[in-house]
Amino acid sequence: MNYPNGKKSASFRPGKNQQSNELAFGNRGMTLEDDINATNDHYLHLNKAVIHKKPTPVQIVKVDYPKRSAAVIKEAYFKQASTTDYNGVYREKYIDFEAKETKNKTSFPLSNIHEHQISHMRQVREHGGISFLIIRFSYYEETFLFPSVKLFPYWESQYNGGRKSIPYQEIKEAGHQIPFKYQARVDYLEILDQLYF
Amino acid sequence: MNYPNGKKSASFRPGKNQQSNELAFGNRGMTLEDDINATNDHYLHLNKAVIHKKPTPVQIVKVDYPKRSAAVIKEAYFKQASTTDYNGVYREKYIDFEAKETKNKTSFPLSNIHEHQISHMRQVREHGGISFLIIRFSYYEETFLFPSVKLFPYWESQYNGGRKSIPYQEIKEAGHQIPFKYQARVDYLEILDQLYF
Repeated sequence: MNYPNGKKSASFRPGKNQQSNELAFGNRGMTLEDDINATNDHYLHLNKAVIHKKPTPVQIVKVDYPKRSAAVIKEAYFKQASTTDYNGVYREKYIDFEAKETKNKTSFPLSNIHEHQISHMRQVREHGGISFLIIRFSYYEETFLFPSVKLFPYWESQYNGGRKSIPYQEIKEAGHQIPFKYQARVDYLEILDQLYF
Repeated sequence: MNYPNGKKSASFRPGKNQQSNELAFGNRGMTLEDDINATNDHYLHLNKAVIHKKPTPVQIVKVDYPKRSAAVIKEAYFKQASTTDYNGVYREKYIDFEAKETKNKTSFPLSNIHEHQISHMRQVREHGGISFLIIRFSYYEETFLFPSVKLFPYWESQYNGGRKSIPYQEIKEAGHQIPFKYQARVDYLEILDQLYF
């Protein structure tokens, strides 16, 4: 079998000690969003889960309707999202997450997240959904699943004189590194299986 | 108690035989989307469910970044949605639906729905989510919850010489009329409680 599968592709994956960009693999140039979208497509194709990225929220101001051709939006603005970017259903559970990539080497800045996203994550948890962040440290090419329940204390402590970021080491310890695979490039369902089912 | 509640507001609701527009109530001029958004806000406020409309999908072609002001989208196009418009979580279940309003008096045209939305609804059901349509007949000011499992046979039969619409009478019989209430203007959770919990 030459076709790459989860096990074979493990050799592409940068290990914890392979932090040089020289060791980078096929992932180079792909954003976290690209990788998650490809992963979700793969899950859908396998009929494993139904999870989609929400469209970018846009405030439309002006639209032209030319004769015999498609409507053209001529003026619009980006709006701040009121929820998280991804949601769907897996093994009968509601799944909801936000994905963020940082170039920072030592910590994940909390400024990547907004207050209303925190509220949303809390609400999702209260209603029995599974809520988490996917955080990529692009320098290390490491991607972590970080349950939202572990995010909340950091979020609060920043208003009580605490730090405004989560140290990389704490994400490494309290989070769950997501394996890189050839097709499921950010195979987060594998982590969810261990944590929630 | 003068504050309108479910029971009181029933007097505003057009009955099955009140089909004249003259009998219309406070709902006049509100679109189905407005009503569902208001209902979802109300559910969120009561901490009953977390259900949001997805943003309109837009293909962004050209963006200007003026100095010292917000980015302006100068050219963009509407894209066809690949999923349904609303989703979220209620009583630990994944909820997913599409809302459509028709001015037609005798039937709901299937052209309101797209093939990939049907695929999406099937996938949602397979993974244990609750999938349905909310259909409003604006002429009668009646709104129905129509489970997607009842939609599928109509969808298929149109390709086998069947009709390209669902008769109003069949929606009335096989669907579930959603009560109009003062705050939860399209109180679909009440129907879900009866059907799925």
